[in-house]
Amino acid sequence: MVHVVDITSPADPRLDDFRDLNSSDRRPDLPGGKGLVIAEGVLVVQRLLASRFEPISLLGVDRRLTELAEDLDGVDVPFYRTTAEIMAEAVGFHLNRGVLAAAHRPPPLELAAVLDGARTVAVLEGVNDHENLGSMFRNAAGLGADAVLFGGATADPLYRRSVRVSMGHVLRVPFATVPDWPRGLGQVRDAGFQLISLTPNPEAVPLAEAMTGEKVALLLGAEGPGLTEHAMRATDIRARIPMAPGTDSLNVATAAAMAFYERVRTG
Amino acid sequence: MVHVVDITSPADPRLDDFRDLNSSDRRPDLPGGKGLVIAEGVLVVQRLLASRFEPISLLGVDRRLTELAEDLDGVDVPFYRTTAEIMAEAVGFHLNRGVLAAAHRPPPLELAAVLDGARTVAVLEGVNDHENLGSMFRNAAGLGADAVLFGGATADPLYRRSVRVSMGHVLRVPFATVPDWPRGLGQVRDAGFQLISLTPNPEAVPLAEAMTGEKVALLLGAEGPGLTEHAMRATDIRARIPMAPGTDSLNVATAAAMAFYERVRTG
Repeated sequence: MVHVVDITSPADPRLDDFRDLNSSDRRPDLPGGKGLVIAEGVLVVQRLLASRFEPISLLGVDRRLTELAEDLDGVDVPFYRTTAEIMAEAVGFHLNRGVLAAAHRPPPLELAAVLDGARTVAVLEGVNDHENLGSMFRNAAGLGADAVLFGGATADPLYRRSVRVSMGHVLRVPFATVPDWPRGLGQVRDAGFQLISLTPNPEAVPLAEAMTGEKVALLLGAEGPGLTEHAMRATDIRARIPMAPGTDSLNVATAAAMAFYERVRTG
Repeated sequence: MVHVVDITSPADPRLDDFRDLNSSDRRPDLPGGKGLVIAEGVLVVQRLLASRFEPISLLGVDRRLTELAEDLDGVDVPFYRTTAEIMAEAVGFHLNRGVLAAAHRPPPLELAAVLDGARTVAVLEGVNDHENLGSMFRNAAGLGADAVLFGGATADPLYRRSVRVSMGHVLRVPFATVPDWPRGLGQVRDAGFQLISLTPNPEAVPLAEAMTGEKVALLLGAEGPGLTEHAMRATDIRARIPMAPGTDSLNVATAAAMAFYERVRTG
């Protein structure tokens, strides 16, 4: 059972995992950034508590403790109960969600384990925007995609903003790194996946026609540069999202959602 | 031709339209919020200059003036040229985009004019998140939807963040208000549009089957509450986005993108 600890000072060292979140998690690689996973708000904290992520402690107001009572059943960590004002002072900004949880990063999942049983996966190359990453996981969860893979330099999906924008789905939808990018895509192909590059190139095959595999891996690059030619060459087919002339490419999470939708529509 | 005016002090009153943007445009209805339309960055400024919106002035660094030279041909307003530091001080935050334009709000477009010639329109009820509005316009532009209509209380699409997130497409994709909501939907139906409610309700018709009209109007509500029953009753059919069990509804702009995509795919 969670043990409730009342906190009366923002300087209490037991709040250190939640301290100055804005400055420390902006650069989780720097001293002060502990690389902890932070969940904000009842819904995301619930998803954390139901995930493979192991909570360290929670910080919140009494009302949130009540709301989370069922989810906290059997969870053996402290709940630091305090006022909204003390929370704001410790955290460094006002949180209208009223509850936070800190968790350890679990060891990364193995690519083979993530692919096992999956039917639709997204593979991201160089996506370095945390909001886009969060939206990607939210869309994957919402439209039933099974996993997200990272190839090339991609931002940290467990960064606080990403967790929040994903509505906690980054804690649920499994993810793994494709080693030796893009050569490691061979492992995805060997697991039975059709490898599909998404591109705005009007000469590519329309998305709906391209996805013929029983299992598909959809490769997406960052907005702007898109996929590298190197990565596209490693795939089986190039598929295009139909785009109006004179517009920019879609947001990468939106482009992925089209493809996930197409899988659900035809699946 | 644009006339270049060098500015050497952040207090120069000629910069007043760009002053303290963060505080004034958060509440454009309050004193200090002039309700001007602000475009940020070369791409969005280019879209502004090519739109029906009438620019008042521009503020930027010399490099951006050079980049915009062609777009500014025939534009008879001042370009306030200054340093990044003076810009930041006047605007109230650091702008890494290096150029801003201020424009008047044009008179609202008439619903009939916006519907004329349109084939696919989104109709938003109670969408009050500026980023979602911006994403909606970006997706409409990218996937060839023709217009966005507002029914019920919807946030201001010309708010600065909305303009930015839309990548300037809110200045290009026409929008209008449906009067006497939701009764005014009759005018949309009379213009030949099939009225389709989008809902996560699993009992609704799958999106791909629901859109049978040559012209369609897709109704979407805000995340969370969704469309009111009142609005749904005024439509011809309820269509659902296929969703994985146990997830939340999709972001409203993403849901719209699915429907726009479906139109492009089958159109």
